[in-house]
Order: sequence, then C-alpha cells, then structure tokens
Amino acid sequence: MTLGHGAGGKLTHDLVEEVFLSRLDSATLGELGDAAVLARPLAGRFAFTTDSFVVRPLFFPGGDIGKLAVNGTVNDLAVSGAEPLYLSAGFILEEGLEIDVLHRIADSMAAAARTAGVEIVAADTKVVERGKGDGVFINTAGVGRLLDGQALSPKAAVAGDRLLLTGTLGDHGLSVYLARQDLGIEVPVQSDCAPLNQILLPMLREFPGEIRFMRDLTRGGAATILNELAAQGGNEVLVDEEAVPVAPAVRGACEMLGFDPLYLANEGKALVVVSAAAAEKVLEFLRARDLGRNAAIVGEVRGAAPSGKPIVLLRTSVGGLRILDPLIEDQLPRIC
Amino acid sequence: MTLGHGAGGKLTHDLVEEVFLSRLDSATLGELGDAAVLARPLAGRFAFTTDSFVVRPLFFPGGDIGKLAVNGTVNDLAVSGAEPLYLSAGFILEEGLEIDVLHRIADSMAAAARTAGVEIVAADTKVVERGKGDGVFINTAGVGRLLDGQALSPKAAVAGDRLLLTGTLGDHGLSVYLARQDLGIEVPVQSDCAPLNQILLPMLREFPGEIRFMRDLTRGGAATILNELAAQGGNEVLVDEEAVPVAPAVRGACEMLGFDPLYLANEGKALVVVSAAAAEKVLEFLRARDLGRNAAIVGEVRGAAPSGKPIVLLRTSVGGLRILDPLIEDQLPRIC
Repeated sequence: MTLGHGAGGKLTHDLVEEVFLSRLDSATLGELGDAAVLARPLAGRFAFTTDSFVVRPLFFPGGDIGKLAVNGTVNDLAVSGAEPLYLSAGFILEEGLEIDVLHRIADSMAAAARTAGVEIVAADTKVVERGKGDGVFINTAGVGRLLDGQALSPKAAVAGDRLLLTGTLGDHGLSVYLARQDLGIEVPVQSDCAPLNQILLPMLREFPGEIRFMRDLTRGGAATILNELAAQGGNEVLVDEEAVPVAPAVRGACEMLGFDPLYLANEGKALVVVSAAAAEKVLEFLRARDLGRNAAIVGEVRGAAPSGKPIVLLRTSVGGLRILDPLIEDQLPRIC
Repeated sequence: MTLGHGAGGKLTHDLVEEVFLSRLDSATLGELGDAAVLARPLAGRFAFTTDSFVVRPLFFPGGDIGKLAVNGTVNDLAVSGAEPLYLSAGFILEEGLEIDVLHRIADSMAAAARTAGVEIVAADTKVVERGKGDGVFINTAGVGRLLDGQALSPKAAVAGDRLLLTGTLGDHGLSVYLARQDLGIEVPVQSDCAPLNQILLPMLREFPGEIRFMRDLTRGGAATILNELAAQGGNEVLVDEEAVPVAPAVRGACEMLGFDPLYLANEGKALVVVSAAAAEKVLEFLRARDLGRNAAIVGEVRGAAPSGKPIVLLRTSVGGLRILDPLIEDQLPRIC
C-alpha cells in the first residue's frame, strides 16, 4: 500500500475495483458514485449508527477486524430493534500494508455481510504514512428499519423485569487478549463475533411488547451496560453471579490472568430486559437457537433505587452482596 | 486523551457527554443508544455515503478536519442529488491528544452541521496508542433523501452537454499544502470547504431534467473527475483551459510550486454536466449565489470517443490540444 493508493486517482480506483468490488456483491457499490443510491425506496422508521474498529491483532481466533466491523454495526442496529439493511465501510490504511491482508479482510467482510443479510453499499479508502496508523482501521455505519410497535429503552424497565444474557461472557475479549500477548498458553477459546439480528429480531417479533431494552455487551462488558441500564432508568438492578454463563475455559483463564468476565468485551452477546411474565418463554426461544443456546436469566430490575442513587448489586457466589461498578480504566485496550 | 477514554466505560461516557453532547444539538444523539433512532419516519428514495478524513494539519486557513468531515459527506450526498439529512461521526483519537483540540473540532463540526442543515445523530470514539494514529481521524457517513425525478449519472451525458465548474479550482489543496509546509511565503488563499447542498439542490429543483451529472472535485481534482465522466459514459470530453476559473493567488503559487490546479483537491466546488439548452441559465443561477459566484462553463461533451477510447482533451492557452490524464501518483497526500 502506498500513499498514492489513497490519493483518489487511478491507483485508488484500481484498489477499490480489485479489492472490494470483486468481493462485495453489491450492484449499488458497483456504481462507484459519490454516494450509494439505495436500490429500493425506504418507508417507515429507521435507525442509523456508526462504529470504528481498531482491534489488534487484525486476525484472532474466531474472527478478524472485517467480520467484527460488519457484525458490530449489525448488532448495534439489532439491539435497537432495527432490521439491518445497508452498511458503509471506511478504511484507513497504513502505508506498507500488504495487499493480501486487505484481500483477506474484504473476503471476511463479504462473508459476514452475507451471513447477516446486509448489503455493503458504500466504501471509502484513505492511506496514511507508515507510523501514522496501525495497519487497518475500519469504520462501518449502518441503516436499519425499526420493527413496528417497539419502544425499547432503558427507561422502559420496571420492577420485576428479568435480566437475560443471550450467552456466555468474555469469549471475545479473552481470545483477542491471548492472540495479542502470545503467552504460550493454549486456551480453547475463540471470539463470539456473530450477527445478533439472527436471534434478536425473531425474538422481538415473537414477543411483542415484552422486551423492554436490549444492548450488546461490547466495550466495557456486561458490568458497564448493567450500570447504564440502572442509571438511565434510575433503578436498582440485581445480578446473581452464579447464574452468569461463562465457558469453563474462559473462567479458568480469567482466574489465572486476573480478569473478570463481567468486564470483558463480547461481540455476539446481548443483555435483554424482559417482562417477568414472558421471561421463561423468551429464554426457551433463545436456547432453541444456536446463537442463544447458552442464554440464561441472571437477575432482575428491583425498581427505583431506594437511596435515589441507581446501583447494580451483585449477589456473589458466597452469598454476599457487592456493588458492581462500571468500567473506569481499561483492562484491555483496542479490543474492537 | 488516554486509552481509557476509548474503552467504552465511564471515561468514554464522560468524554462523549462533555465534548460532543454539549455542542452537537441533537436530541437523537443525546439518547446515547447503540444506534440513533431517527425522530421522523423516512419515505422515498435515499442515498447513503461514507468518507474518512485524515487531513494534516488538523487546522488550516478556511477550515479544519471537523468542518471538512461534515461538508465532505454533505457534498457527496448533494452531488448525488440527495438532500443531506443525517450524519454519523466516528473518531479515532491518538493517545496524548489535547482535549482542547477535540473541543475545537467538535465546535467546528457543530457549526458546519448547522450551516449545512444536517443533524449529527450518531457518534463513536476510539483511542489508539501514541504512534499508532495521528491526532484525529474522523469518519462521517450520511443519509440523504433523493430529489424526485432525478437520474444523475455520467452515462446520462450526451454530445453537446456543457461542462460547468461551480467556482475556482485549487484553493483547498493549496491552502492545506501551505499550512503543512510552512514555506514562509504569504499567499492569500484559504480552503473553499463549504456545503454544496446550498446551491446544487436549489439548482436541481429549478432545472428539472437538465442536469445530467454532478461530482465534487476532491481527491484527484477536476482532472480525475473529468476522466471518470469520460470513461463511464464512453465519451470524448473537451475542456478549455483558459475558461477554467483559478484565483490569481492560487495561479501564481501553483506556477511557483509546480502544481496544476486541475489536479488539486477542492472541498466546495463541483463539476456540473448540463444540457446545452439550459447551460447559460444554470450559469446565471449559480453566479447569483455566493458559493457559485465564480462559476464558469469550461467545456463540453463531444459524444462517443471516435477512437472508441474515452478521453479528456484540454485546449491549452496557446491553442493546442493535449490529453488530460487522471491523477496516478499523488502530488499532495492527506489533503482531506
């Protein structure tokens, strides 16, 4: 990769044709206009989101920056109750990057987009000098159509609502950490990077009005999201540590390395706040699907915080109660 | 800026609140959800675009990376015939960045969004280690509603159509170059960074069916865009060098430095391909507006290339004809 590849001229044009057009199966992208003119009209209510990805290393067990960039934005739309439709992809490449690396990332994005059922319709590449970037950064933005009749919000949570996790915690964060450090220990763990629209949108359709709020558990982990839930609704929230699903290999490695799975990033797991009445049925629905097979009910909303101060309480495995703080400093930078 | 500011926890939350929410006047952004739920339903045909900005230096005469990031995406939508509505903003920050720099950039983005009439509804921040980025990179993506009844395309150009430039060439590229090099010469030039929706959309509405194609003249400059016009329509295109508007200060500096204004990037200028019948009236319309006051008709589409090979011919000031090639290598990297 040279600076000329980012200059907008013939080299940029050739790069886009060779790397992206051949892989990303989109007639819209193929037009190479300044903006993508969407093939179908839009009608209804929509969600719009953006996320940049700076994960290191670029490739790790279970995924890579390209798969992550597609699923990350797909998931942000899905937890908002929106069917992901269109994605854009903006690349910031470092001079000297091997073109083969970009080929592999584009392949991975194309596969992830097919799996998630979204179309990458707009792309942009920029190149910065060696030492001014770090291989590849990717931004994806996404447009999704909101399902009718949903009003998901942390403020919709009421006393008695159940907290449900769609699967085990910590797999992504730990697998990226291990890939980065090369500690020489073999841990059978891989990133959970996956498109949550595949389970969350069918769930929303199946249980209209029963789902209060959803959020994927990325940077900051479950602990941070639980604190946002409490803070935005002014609630006290209780989590049962024993009920939190964690794969045995992840639990073991976390104990050895001093990590808490509640603070590790996930890329294919969500918190779902659901009415008490529907909680068991929602759990059953999720468990019947591959991406939700380890789902669990892990706690509940206790209602307005008695002290007036929103709080997340953790009932620990030895039976005590402690406050679960949000993440303040980072235990693992550049995890996504 | 520390790595913790990018970790997704409390520091990230505080950064977003302090820097962005206070400035970007958006109730939607204020919800801080995973995706922005757009306040109004959408109906009609839409365009979607993305662009990353890596300009160096971050501040230059006439603009900065924030203003550029807003207007760049606004312009990509406008030249596609779409009214820009919603923008997202993704920041990749380098550890050690002064928070004050980010404040100034956010101020500038807020002002640019107000001027352009768009709402920044979604934002994301990531932080990379010192030496793995370069201060601030910004990605913006944008959604715009296509005006009815337009079918803009380079393939719509036919023999006799006129080529119109909305203003002088080279101001942005030169001003960034001079700000970067600190050559110690005083040149009264500043970036033309501006929201072209303000003139191009009223023009489209005023002259329905007469505008064939538009493109803003960013990376690669007018020469590259003219070549794309020729290539995609299979046409021979003729440009009269004497008719190309260039500010005297820009012309002088280009001669001194060996730059050709036809290859310099612009951030507030577009090529408009217009029917011969409407060309003079469109010119008059643009010249009556501040952002189009230096508009000029600079050439025409001559129809299918006689050799079968699309080509851009330049009638030089001494009367000869030469081929105007697209940009191949970069004369000025990181200009946007």
